[in-house]
Amino acid sequence: MNLPESLIQMGSKRNIMREIREYGLLRAWEVGAEKVLDFSLGNPSVEPPRRVNDFIRELLSGPEAASVHGYTTAQGELGVREKLAASLTRRFGGPYDAGDLYLTVGAAAALCCCFRALACPGDQFILLAPFFTEYTYFITGNGGEPVVVPPDYATFQPDLGALERSITSHTKAVVVNSPNNPSGVVYTAETLSAMAELLRRKAAEYGHPIYLISDEPYREIVFEGFSVPWLPDFYDDTLVCYSYSKSLSLPGERIGYILIGKPVADREALYAAICGAGRVLGYVNAPSLFQRVAAECDGLTADLTVYQTNRDLLYHGLTELGYTCVEPGGTFYLMVKSPEPDAAAFCERAKRYDLLFPPTDDFHCPGWCRIAFCTATETVQKALPLFKKLAAEYGLN
Amino acid sequence: MNLPESLIQMGSKRNIMREIREYGLLRAWEVGAEKVLDFSLGNPSVEPPRRVNDFIRELLSGPEAASVHGYTTAQGELGVREKLAASLTRRFGGPYDAGDLYLTVGAAAALCCCFRALACPGDQFILLAPFFTEYTYFITGNGGEPVVVPPDYATFQPDLGALERSITSHTKAVVVNSPNNPSGVVYTAETLSAMAELLRRKAAEYGHPIYLISDEPYREIVFEGFSVPWLPDFYDDTLVCYSYSKSLSLPGERIGYILIGKPVADREALYAAICGAGRVLGYVNAPSLFQRVAAECDGLTADLTVYQTNRDLLYHGLTELGYTCVEPGGTFYLMVKSPEPDAAAFCERAKRYDLLFPPTDDFHCPGWCRIAFCTATETVQKALPLFKKLAAEYGLN
Repeated sequence: MNLPESLIQMGSKRNIMREIREYGLLRAWEVGAEKVLDFSLGNPSVEPPRRVNDFIRELLSGPEAASVHGYTTAQGELGVREKLAASLTRRFGGPYDAGDLYLTVGAAAALCCCFRALACPGDQFILLAPFFTEYTYFITGNGGEPVVVPPDYATFQPDLGALERSITSHTKAVVVNSPNNPSGVVYTAETLSAMAELLRRKAAEYGHPIYLISDEPYREIVFEGFSVPWLPDFYDDTLVCYSYSKSLSLPGERIGYILIGKPVADREALYAAICGAGRVLGYVNAPSLFQRVAAECDGLTADLTVYQTNRDLLYHGLTELGYTCVEPGGTFYLMVKSPEPDAAAFCERAKRYDLLFPPTDDFHCPGWCRIAFCTATETVQKALPLFKKLAAEYGLN
Repeated sequence: MNLPESLIQMGSKRNIMREIREYGLLRAWEVGAEKVLDFSLGNPSVEPPRRVNDFIRELLSGPEAASVHGYTTAQGELGVREKLAASLTRRFGGPYDAGDLYLTVGAAAALCCCFRALACPGDQFILLAPFFTEYTYFITGNGGEPVVVPPDYATFQPDLGALERSITSHTKAVVVNSPNNPSGVVYTAETLSAMAELLRRKAAEYGHPIYLISDEPYREIVFEGFSVPWLPDFYDDTLVCYSYSKSLSLPGERIGYILIGKPVADREALYAAICGAGRVLGYVNAPSLFQRVAAECDGLTADLTVYQTNRDLLYHGLTELGYTCVEPGGTFYLMVKSPEPDAAAFCERAKRYDLLFPPTDDFHCPGWCRIAFCTATETVQKALPLFKKLAAEYGLN
């Protein structure tokens, strides 16, 4: 047999969240779904904004009913990109125009196109731990080499000293994901200013641009007292990768974009390389109906209040029980420190209470776990007394 | 500037069909749309079957309205794959089950996943000319080396002698696209039997499987007197790549599948490698709403009668005018031989009559042109008198 071994491995090894999810479904069948408290998957629990389905029904009853399913240009329908650019300009400044946008089949596709478009032989891409498990596959699969930088464990902000030591003449880009999966942390303006300053200095030192790739699917899921700075305001060479998966609760529909503003270095060539990357990866155009949905609904969100409620209950509840938690500024994730060195063992112990969540070893953060609270609030309320029993086992508090 | 030069080229160079299309739009603005007879793009001209939009509206008004937009498993929603497998079994035999299917973001994604999953260093993929312009990009972009085999120019069936001479110990797969873009030719059962026999012999000689990758977006667009053989009946190691783009007139929605039947060599490993390929290429899942549409509408087609009408008018009309044409057995393409050696020059001359179509040089078939007759019949009727004038310039007939 002569097939690429790494891909076989990658296709055989289940993502740990999906493994837990499947265990949860099995367990629900055994003991009843109401007893299984599954915090494994980042699947939005709230419905899309009503406008999404209303708009689709209107569109499919109107004069565009047939043409809406046709090919669009590879970078996305011009009218769609114009509307999105206007919306982004209203919300974030810019100004942006249609030529700054390349619509993608979700954020994963956006990231893959960026990595592919940037990676020359030997190029390194810096990942700030903790980070989404798939990043390393996206980078190695598209010609780059990932370099992992640990966080400042006191705050889970990036450790800029460690970042500086990791930058070499081979550094092509740094990936930023804020609000962060899995930590929920929002990088502060201070962090971003200092990071931008560092990158400008290093880019000048090495004589070539170092890009920031900002993966922002959680941009709109932000909690009281927090706000998400707009990265292009801090650093010119920023590529924004966005997805409507979480804000509009449309993760299965795969719609997102890359924003490449005017100040980005080698912008024309890079935009062309992204188009070329889309071609070789087989992305003909982003799904056409949902391009229209994005244009119609950009800036709207699903009703995200349940995430705030769940976050408050969980963060305060677990902290009071003696757990060490990272305070989430956004997303629907919370990281809790394992009370024993082996986080997988802690997860196994939690499983006995039918509390299901993964360790963050695969997120490059051993010793911690990720609780995805995109669930009904009732699930959180049922979980807390069980977390209390679990805390007692460890003698917390 | 240090960016991948080949991708910049690929993203800058417009596909010739799109270039002509844009010229056509400009020209329509100058002289009126009714005067411009644009046969450049393979964008279906007929509406999707009514059931498509009706079904979406029903689904979005029913109990699944919210959940339908959620993540599915990477290989596609189980229920969807079960329905599709049952439909394929009814239509083609098999039997097939859900585990044989991997849903994709259209046929381009299906092909890229197959190439990526199969390609080990040095592996060659044979393309039977003429073929869709993007194949070479898909192959080189995913780690393979394309090898081009010319057709039998008398019939535009594959030249099996030339194919045999092209097969080496490095041959990993042969790509078949029947009904063929751009020739419209349907490979006969005789061709396919002989090809299968050849591949079995060569696979045995070299001691490893040689796969057939069957790209079938035009499977249902077949003309009177022709039928499309089912490749897995001829050759065990066949991967079927399908798209609903043309049959349901949904090219922008990007929905298709890979079918990997039980007899395929190293099936389990190959299925896993395809899942792994999907991961590294950034394909999280095929668009979820249109997965449901595919399950509901598989086997239906748009009203394809206009393609038969146009094909008859064009094929007989052009032949009577003295042009040399390949008789299309399917698709909505017809190849006409350039009356002068340089097909691009012929296309330029046709342009003076506002007859727009590309030469097939990029399809690896110089000296010919492709006429995409997925247009209103009126467009064909208006074109024929102009083709007559053009024929007179060349002294045809």
